[in-house]
Amino acid sequence: MIIAVIGDSSCSPEEAKLAESVGELLAQQGANIVCGGLGGVMEAVCRGAKSKGGLTVGILPGEDSSMANPWVDIPVVTGLGEARNVMVVKSAQAVIAIGGGYGTLSEIAYALKNSIPVIGLNTWSLSRNGREDDSIIRVQSATEAVSKAIALAERRKNYEIASLSSQ
Amino acid sequence: MIIAVIGDSSCSPEEAKLAESVGELLAQQGANIVCGGLGGVMEAVCRGAKSKGGLTVGILPGEDSSMANPWVDIPVVTGLGEARNVMVVKSAQAVIAIGGGYGTLSEIAYALKNSIPVIGLNTWSLSRNGREDDSIIRVQSATEAVSKAIALAERRKNYEIASLSSQ
Amino acid sequence: MIIAVIGDSSCSPEEAKLAESVGELLAQQGANIVCGGLGGVMEAVCRGAKSKGGLTVGILPGEDSSMANPWVDIPVVTGLGEARNVMVVKSAQAVIAIGGGYGTLSEIAYALKNSIPVIGLNTWSLSRNGREDDSIIRVQSATEAVSKAIALAERRKNYEIASLSSQ
Amino acid sequence: MIIAVIGDSSCSPEEAKLAESVGELLAQQGANIVCGGLGGVMEAVCRGAKSKGGLTVGILPGEDSSMANPWVDIPVVTGLGEARNVMVVKSAQAVIAIGGGYGTLSEIAYALKNSIPVIGLNTWSLSRNGREDDSIIRVQSATEAVSKAIALAERRKNYEIASLSSQ
Repeated sequence: MIIAVIGDSSCSPEEAKLAESVGELLAQQGANIVCGGLGGVMEAVCRGAKSKGGLTVGILPGEDSSMANPWVDIPVVTGLGEARNVMVVKSAQAVIAIGGGYGTLSEIAYALKNSIPVIGLNTWSLSRNGREDDSIIRVQSATEAVSKAIALAERRKNYEIASLSSQ
Repeated sequence: MIIAVIGDSSCSPEEAKLAESVGELLAQQGANIVCGGLGGVMEAVCRGAKSKGGLTVGILPGEDSSMANPWVDIPVVTGLGEARNVMVVKSAQAVIAIGGGYGTLSEIAYALKNSIPVIGLNTWSLSRNGREDDSIIRVQSATEAVSKAIALAERRKNYEIASLSSQ
Repeated sequence: MIIAVIGDSSCSPEEAKLAESVGELLAQQGANIVCGGLGGVMEAVCRGAKSKGGLTVGILPGEDSSMANPWVDIPVVTGLGEARNVMVVKSAQAVIAIGGGYGTLSEIAYALKNSIPVIGLNTWSLSRNGREDDSIIRVQSATEAVSKAIALAERRKNYEIASLSSQ
Repeated sequence: MIIAVIGDSSCSPEEAKLAESVGELLAQQGANIVCGGLGGVMEAVCRGAKSKGGLTVGILPGEDSSMANPWVDIPVVTGLGEARNVMVVKSAQAVIAIGGGYGTLSEIAYALKNSIPVIGLNTWSLSRNGREDDSIIRVQSATEAVSKAIALAERRKNYEIASLSSQ
């Protein structure tokens, strides 16, 4: 199981603490982590995951792996700039968004477009023509985020296997 | 000057009418149009532009040009799927968003990330942690959208030229 | 009809002269040109095309249009780095390669992979396990390159229309 | 250390055997493997690596992970089609090419463009204007391929660290 954790490369100490806890909990549950590989939320979640023996994949925007944070096990070098955002979410069965700027917003949009569940901690809210879009599943703690993400990823994985079997 | 017009490949008759008017007005002002090249809002804006002699570029997600709507002059075949969204907005000096689903939301996010002005007609509203983000410039008519887009694109173009001169 | 012209961003005076002639002849035949938008062969072909009233599209690797050569009408800003190479050839019905380094070689490979005809002027030769691969159509002059490219692009276009009609 | 192994999704039994041996040897030396994640050479190298406890990353062209071969540990879902080829080589410190069609040729071109060493087993030969290009390091066995790849990757890694230290 692979869970994407998304958020800004510069973040508040509270967001970093949340991200680190999310990383620890995901690793303890045996989930692999994919992220954008840089600093801020991405670095904190990788650090947390490595402290509990997890595996971390960083999908990097630049031309070499030197920008990866030190807790990335597998740096994927894309050279695609921000177009790499779509790959971060498509590679996961569920997404946890922590805070985040416009880059994170593009990732949330791609995830929802592809029916990949998004769990949000202090992140964007969306509405269209005055009607709220409640597709982002809002939670209040790292524990809640991880348990929801794993449950939804499990369901999605089973669904994919069922789709393949019925082909 | 190139203006991006973004919106869903299936849209309401009202949105199509708005998009067609936007296309007509942009062409009359001499602006080239870039869009995702498919149906719905993208088709309507191209049809409008061609009716007034404009030039239209369609940046297509698929593997050949057969999916381009009939009013695309220059089909750019990317084969990149939704990762092509980032190119639609980066190729423009300003963006007009009409309605739109999650694909359009990813384009709005990419434009704001890159400080490219976004003018919105009945499109997404954003807030973060309870605070509204008012970066999208909201307008009520095609005329207003086009005049704002052209003014902001002009300013952006001059700014780019100034940046280059001072290097 | 869109023809891709590919080659290095730094080239010999002979290659530049060839590219400029190719641009002039393509424009005179009413073909649009797509290229990588930078200097060298790309700049020479655009300059030639514009001198005869042609239309030029430059698919740029970088983050803004400032790197486009002055004869690009439509700068497409991808931000994708070298991954944009695949789009240059996929957007065309035929490809003319003039000289070229490893970037040009990646474009030749992508074109052949997608059965897009490649006409070569002083460009790469390929062999595999000691057997020559003669997929690149070798020519000796700009005139020959352009007439072959247009004939093959026309055939490919008709084939695509036939494929669509029979669906 | 990450080594890319590239080759066709359909290959001869001899090529599959070579690829499997390469996978076994790389895993025994502690190298991680990155590949395109599909069948043929890609599947054989992953199978070999897993038989010796290695870690395999598959950078997939499609929209979900169902196309990954069963020996891929980390499927990276790009949705980019053939544009994903550039990422396979950029994510590695050295590349081993086994046989291969035009897709493999595009990867060889990208690697050489980025000065990433390419070791070749029964793969493409290149020449330009009648002059052979001997950038591909030709070897005759899996053992030789792996020992060259690891030595060159090690040298490249040290070079990168030296570059970073001197900044």
